[in-house]
Amino acid sequence: MKFPHSQSLKQIAELIKADFVGEPDFKILGINEIHVVEEGDIVFVDHPKYYDKALESKASVVLINKKVDCPEGKALLISEDPFTDFNKLTAHFSPFKASSQAVSNSAKIGENTILQPNVFLGNDVKIGNNCIIHSNVSIYDGVEIGDNVQIHAGTILGADAFYYKNRPTHHDKLFSGGSVKIENNVEIGALCTIDKGVSGITIIGEGTKLDNQVQIGHDTIIGKKCLIASQTGIAGCVIVEDEVTIWGQVGIASGLKIGSKAIIFAQSGISKDLKPNTTYFGTPADDIKKKYRELAYINRIPDIIQKLKNL
Amino acid sequence: MKFPHSQSLKQIAELIKADFVGEPDFKILGINEIHVVEEGDIVFVDHPKYYDKALESKASVVLINKKVDCPEGKALLISEDPFTDFNKLTAHFSPFKASSQAVSNSAKIGENTILQPNVFLGNDVKIGNNCIIHSNVSIYDGVEIGDNVQIHAGTILGADAFYYKNRPTHHDKLFSGGSVKIENNVEIGALCTIDKGVSGITIIGEGTKLDNQVQIGHDTIIGKKCLIASQTGIAGCVIVEDEVTIWGQVGIASGLKIGSKAIIFAQSGISKDLKPNTTYFGTPADDIKKKYRELAYINRIPDIIQKLKNL
Amino acid sequence: MKFPHSQSLKQIAELIKADFVGEPDFKILGINEIHVVEEGDIVFVDHPKYYDKALESKASVVLINKKVDCPEGKALLISEDPFTDFNKLTAHFSPFKASSQAVSNSAKIGENTILQPNVFLGNDVKIGNNCIIHSNVSIYDGVEIGDNVQIHAGTILGADAFYYKNRPTHHDKLFSGGSVKIENNVEIGALCTIDKGVSGITIIGEGTKLDNQVQIGHDTIIGKKCLIASQTGIAGCVIVEDEVTIWGQVGIASGLKIGSKAIIFAQSGISKDLKPNTTYFGTPADDIKKKYRELAYINRIPDIIQKLKNL
Repeated sequence: MKFPHSQSLKQIAELIKADFVGEPDFKILGINEIHVVEEGDIVFVDHPKYYDKALESKASVVLINKKVDCPEGKALLISEDPFTDFNKLTAHFSPFKASSQAVSNSAKIGENTILQPNVFLGNDVKIGNNCIIHSNVSIYDGVEIGDNVQIHAGTILGADAFYYKNRPTHHDKLFSGGSVKIENNVEIGALCTIDKGVSGITIIGEGTKLDNQVQIGHDTIIGKKCLIASQTGIAGCVIVEDEVTIWGQVGIASGLKIGSKAIIFAQSGISKDLKPNTTYFGTPADDIKKKYRELAYINRIPDIIQKLKNL
Repeated sequence: MKFPHSQSLKQIAELIKADFVGEPDFKILGINEIHVVEEGDIVFVDHPKYYDKALESKASVVLINKKVDCPEGKALLISEDPFTDFNKLTAHFSPFKASSQAVSNSAKIGENTILQPNVFLGNDVKIGNNCIIHSNVSIYDGVEIGDNVQIHAGTILGADAFYYKNRPTHHDKLFSGGSVKIENNVEIGALCTIDKGVSGITIIGEGTKLDNQVQIGHDTIIGKKCLIASQTGIAGCVIVEDEVTIWGQVGIASGLKIGSKAIIFAQSGISKDLKPNTTYFGTPADDIKKKYRELAYINRIPDIIQKLKNL
Repeated sequence: MKFPHSQSLKQIAELIKADFVGEPDFKILGINEIHVVEEGDIVFVDHPKYYDKALESKASVVLINKKVDCPEGKALLISEDPFTDFNKLTAHFSPFKASSQAVSNSAKIGENTILQPNVFLGNDVKIGNNCIIHSNVSIYDGVEIGDNVQIHAGTILGADAFYYKNRPTHHDKLFSGGSVKIENNVEIGALCTIDKGVSGITIIGEGTKLDNQVQIGHDTIIGKKCLIASQTGIAGCVIVEDEVTIWGQVGIASGLKIGSKAIIFAQSGISKDLKPNTTYFGTPADDIKKKYRELAYINRIPDIIQKLKNL
């Protein structure tokens, strides 16, 4: 998430009441989570196990709960609770804004684009040309949609990430300040949910087609020309490369990478990265050839038992 | 379900045209199904197999299809078709009321609570303070929501139980006269469905968080501080104790009990009660350690076949 | 899909700029896909593998990408790209019509039928008597609903089929010109999706009951008095015969036939036709008795390994 205008280290430190290490006018452009952080960004870290990763990342500023040596050319923000302070920054620069009307005045809608009745468009939503947005679709603030996109009824774009920190007394929500981008020529079925990124952008790549009731988690990036069948759920921070085919009711765990042109058979459960150009099946999923062999082996058990008896 | 005012045995008997055993002015407070019945309630039973259970339950009045001995301190309603007469009582005391406007006049909405556009609030809905109800959410009559609750777009609270009696010619619906209660600090994702209880209350406990597209059946009680990931389906009359973690696409059959702090891995299918503090996986699910061992055993079958050949 | 009025072969040939074989005034009644084609219809075929099937079908006119011998009593339309030309016919005779109001003027609504707030009814929707359509339901153009039907909140009837032809540069959508028919006494839960047929009609048979979050694909025909539990997904062109019971989170692949009174246990994955009066479980599913035996065999592997060691 980028700030509307660049901020100084001192400004941010005052905002979250943190100490800082670095020049007071050190320039900051935005905030991001570790896996999508860029130069100019603040990243946060609150566990010693991940200190090095954060300090060595592309982040220009590290929001951290210990006064460590500051890497050259970077700055530190020292905070007792970086998680909470990161949330303060999200709430400050990307606050929830209530909508008093179903289609926000700040929404931009392209030529020949049709909005069916009962559609909700939040603040600063952008929709390209020649799109059809069917009835009862909800599009949260800031979502961007390209040209020639069709979104079927009841679909929800841009709800919050399902992302909580376990505290002793409660689950502490990491606020979502990111967004959703739907590229050109995408079609999305009815009653799908595509969550916004926590700090980054959840992307559905050009020409990809989603069936009904598909769930796409925060910060997940779906490539171009993929087919995703009904009731499939893809968790957060997943990368699905181009031309992947996913059949119905598949589940993909968070943070995984699915290689281009991979094919995943229905109801499979994916808990590891998948290779390109390969077909998978099962829970946990495996190469289809290995999986079918495994099923054949199970059918041979009665035979094995008989042979053992005959010995 | 409690009646708005207490009723006499004679009043109820006349309403459903049933005979009765007991004092005409025997006081009745409500109706309930067998698993949630309380003193003062009517319970119904229409199969001899369950007569004793109903007669020995906490119910004060048993609506039954045979003239049996009446337990002391209780009363009987004798009916040819207790199922249909129970439905008559639900329809009389908790009738469906059509809504002519999107937010009912009888809905009570707390301070600082935001309703986004296209929300439907039925009759007598109560929402606490500091809540956000996102666009296109539907909340049926009588649902109660605590403070600091966020409900994402398109979610449906309080639809009817999926509960039918198989008759020779058709499925006969058991009417839903119960409700839904969402406790404080709960967050519910987009496009979830939480059904009302048949006679009791479906409860989402304090601080519990639901991801998108989660289904919770009638009369199910989810404890406090649980996490339930996307596309999980929990059937009716389930008890999920506190601090349970359920990953995506899990299914839980009706009437089960999930012990506190249990963890259920993605896509598992639960058909038995689960112990507290234990991790489960698979369909049918088992202790994760046993399940992984089982998968390892299957991988050893080719080796077994080879060894048998070598003998 | 039938044309509003019958067309001549010459008229259709001019519309799609195709050559034709047959009498110019040969009468054409509509267009249909191969599996539902009737006398008077155009069917399309673009792969030599399926030429014979199309030419020998009930279709009166075959839209084909090669000049073959014309069967007696039939006609041919010769086109370089039958898929695209079939789409042109769908777009011409069943064009998408934007709706400027939530309940179309051309919608017909029966006596005692209740529409809750925020319902969308498209053009030419027909709803019978004594129905309840709950809030935020979306019903696309042309859907027909019988008497005594209840449809819970947020459900979507009549979205497009998920049906694409894989071209070198993109996925080419087969337009949906079909419809959805919900017969009498059906109840549909919250947040279900029932897609329209590509050229035919997706049907939910009399007295059938669907739980929440069920997905029914295009051209699928569900029989009478079926029960389908939550989060089940049934692909396109499936035939489910009468009185079938399907538990939660089941998946059924496209084009299959499920015999009457079959029972499918939760989370099963169906990839073959199922016999009537039989109970199935597992992914891939099998007769429950065989499946349970299989699970028991897997549990005997440790024993087998021990016996082999002892030899």
